[in-house]
Amino acid sequence: MAKIAPLSGFPEFLPGQRIVEQQILDTVREIFELHGFASLETRSVEPLEQLLRKGEIDKEVYVLRRLHASDADQPSQADQLGLHFDLTVPLARYVLQNAGHLDFPFRRYQIQKVWRGERPQEGRYREFTQADIDIIGRDTLAFHHEVEIALVMAEVFAALPIPPAIIKVNNRKLVEGFFRGVGAADHEAGLRALDKLDKVGSDRVRTLLIDEAGVDSDRADVCLQMAQISGSDGSVADRLRGLGVQHPLLDQGLDELMAVVTAAEARRPGAVAADLKIARGLDYYTGTVFETELAGFESLGSICSGGRYDSLATDGRATFPGIGISLGVSRLVVPLLAAGHLQASRTVPSCVLVAVGDESERAASDAVADQLRSRGISTEVAPQAAKFGKQIRHADRRGIPFVWFASADGHSVKDIRSGDQVDADPTTWNPPASDLRPTVTMDSGQATDPRDPQQEEFTS
Amino acid sequence: MAKIAPLSGFPEFLPGQRIVEQQILDTVREIFELHGFASLETRSVEPLEQLLRKGEIDKEVYVLRRLHASDADQPSQADQLGLHFDLTVPLARYVLQNAGHLDFPFRRYQIQKVWRGERPQEGRYREFTQADIDIIGRDTLAFHHEVEIALVMAEVFAALPIPPAIIKVNNRKLVEGFFRGVGAADHEAGLRALDKLDKVGSDRVRTLLIDEAGVDSDRADVCLQMAQISGSDGSVADRLRGLGVQHPLLDQGLDELMAVVTAAEARRPGAVAADLKIARGLDYYTGTVFETELAGFESLGSICSGGRYDSLATDGRATFPGIGISLGVSRLVVPLLAAGHLQASRTVPSCVLVAVGDESERAASDAVADQLRSRGISTEVAPQAAKFGKQIRHADRRGIPFVWFASADGHSVKDIRSGDQVDADPTTWNPPASDLRPTVTMDSGQATDPRDPQQEEFTS
Repeated sequence: MAKIAPLSGFPEFLPGQRIVEQQILDTVREIFELHGFASLETRSVEPLEQLLRKGEIDKEVYVLRRLHASDADQPSQADQLGLHFDLTVPLARYVLQNAGHLDFPFRRYQIQKVWRGERPQEGRYREFTQADIDIIGRDTLAFHHEVEIALVMAEVFAALPIPPAIIKVNNRKLVEGFFRGVGAADHEAGLRALDKLDKVGSDRVRTLLIDEAGVDSDRADVCLQMAQISGSDGSVADRLRGLGVQHPLLDQGLDELMAVVTAAEARRPGAVAADLKIARGLDYYTGTVFETELAGFESLGSICSGGRYDSLATDGRATFPGIGISLGVSRLVVPLLAAGHLQASRTVPSCVLVAVGDESERAASDAVADQLRSRGISTEVAPQAAKFGKQIRHADRRGIPFVWFASADGHSVKDIRSGDQVDADPTTWNPPASDLRPTVTMDSGQATDPRDPQQEEFTS
Repeated sequence: MAKIAPLSGFPEFLPGQRIVEQQILDTVREIFELHGFASLETRSVEPLEQLLRKGEIDKEVYVLRRLHASDADQPSQADQLGLHFDLTVPLARYVLQNAGHLDFPFRRYQIQKVWRGERPQEGRYREFTQADIDIIGRDTLAFHHEVEIALVMAEVFAALPIPPAIIKVNNRKLVEGFFRGVGAADHEAGLRALDKLDKVGSDRVRTLLIDEAGVDSDRADVCLQMAQISGSDGSVADRLRGLGVQHPLLDQGLDELMAVVTAAEARRPGAVAADLKIARGLDYYTGTVFETELAGFESLGSICSGGRYDSLATDGRATFPGIGISLGVSRLVVPLLAAGHLQASRTVPSCVLVAVGDESERAASDAVADQLRSRGISTEVAPQAAKFGKQIRHADRRGIPFVWFASADGHSVKDIRSGDQVDADPTTWNPPASDLRPTVTMDSGQATDPRDPQQEEFTS
């Protein structure tokens, strides 16, 4: 059979890399649950009509077709099923479908794969994992959840073995109010122009502001000055007010922004900062918006984004406002792994390999392994009887720290890293806590931009 | 917006049901890892060519199409991508692709969704979760792994809150040898006939044995007698030998079968039994085969199946034999939930709700919550200031057992089930261990066949 090549855009991991991803996902889940978010999984597919209902016809959706369905058997366009491209559209549908069975505010987290039918050539992910938290109200949702959700994600970042991540906050009311205050003809075009600042630079954005948003040329410079404001203290508000633009919506947005930043700064200093160029192109945000930059990996773009939406969904009787934030797990983990920044201490969960000196002694080795496992110690038994040197090499290749030797005379366990070997009883021996599970370490010395984050780095 | 209906074949859970599924998945993972299986996730798609390579053109595959791809842009049939319908085909591809980076025997577990493009009407799952373990050798794989893999799955069943499950074992060599011994013209047709015994009954199988497998009519009865043999002690071998059929392959298969059953009976009595009618229609098994019946839920069919395959994959230089077993998590969990047999003690992870008497005191409540969380206690803060009775109802609706009251005078915590309220310090208080996380209980009094396992039971 010919050499099998990886599929562009569908990253896969080797076992040691998967252990890194798993531990990151476990940490994310643990923190979400500590804050009372309930797990939700939605089906992977939605009717195409639902996926495109926001008019987002530019989304690259994968549509499903049953291989053996006849043409007559295929559903109409609207009834066709597509793979979800985010976890927000499914959440909106789920909330509407099950509103009568949910308690509001509904706090849910969702860690799942999503798919985007990107062109294969572009080196983008076509399958990737997201970890979202959202708090959904029925008709109303208190503002303090906008602070809360940023702080939960900041706690995740603090717990992960990754470079520092700062959550950048802005407020759509502030930006809209600002554009209205400078007399922009089309404030949404202004938002879209602002969103391009990092990509195309201020000269080009200035042109867009004038040509597309209808901002006077002297006011366009004021908009660019606004977009340069960032920080996590009261000076943000002072600098913005110093620009002299006035609008009630601007005042409201600024108050909300400062409330988020001030409360976050009090509870977790340095984790959250205002950044007035953050716009979020998506049209459903109505208040606070978030983006997150990873120090040294700015070229990845935002690894964690979200915001407030006053109407995630409505069923005619009730409206469901929400606040959510979505961590791009693959976007974060794949490049860090590709660049060799994250390492697992072993490629298997096993803490102990029980040696087998002779096949006739396998049952005794199995019994030792069962005793260790019953006390939570991951253990495997040597797959074949062999000289002890070979068994130690078997453990060493996988990073298993301990090899257990059982004989009629007694038991001993060897730390193959140090070579220390001690007598041991399988009903009482415990490894050091730090060896019980694989550990993940970050090589912080190399925290610079990654190599090409193509999945070819992983499994070819 | 019109009422949204569930999609047939795509089960979804309410939050309390999801907690049940999560705890089952956590237990499965924990036991797999205790036995040294490493986690693997493969991408959800494979090239169509790969999915159909075993000639299984009857598989109901979902093929992907990019919504915005032009006709010229669409890949050729062989390059099209389909969603995987099991976790074995992706494993075979992954092992070939990464053989140079894996250590053999390669012990991996894989808990993932799979998809089958079934016709919507049939009430079958079109998206469901499987949990597989496989041990893959390079060129050789010791027989003892066939015992091991059954015992790992038996340990899973013993740990789950489900009715008793017995793993039924047979051996393809035994069955093939038996058919050869009775002079069947087509032993594979014999296997396929045997596979239908539970569905179509012995009269019809007898006809198939004669017409399709070419067994003489008097020998067909001997085959049916063979298929009735089951048990977990030496009497299985005695009864089989008593039928007087002779073939070297039969002897080899019987030895292997008895080795699995005897070793399993010694280590976990009652978990595994020989059942000579088990055939497994899939063509790649070459030795031990497994199926699993859930007591009281026999109509579900096998909830956990697998076997030995001497050649999962080959790349011309090396052959990769394997032994694997696959737990149908959705097949097990969805009907038990639908029938109300499994219940979570609460619908959220939260153990404590911190009350907020007045919005001006929210920061104090947040501080209490952070202290509790820092010690691993899942905590949420009341979403709005309200009378304490309302806050207790908020907790009660979600099953949160404790409500925390903080005031300038001091702290107290109330167990809202008993009504007991005690003074408490957020830096030292702990809930009873049994309340720390949601618990799952089985209502064993109702362990009979479930209602229709349609997902409509869940979320409508």
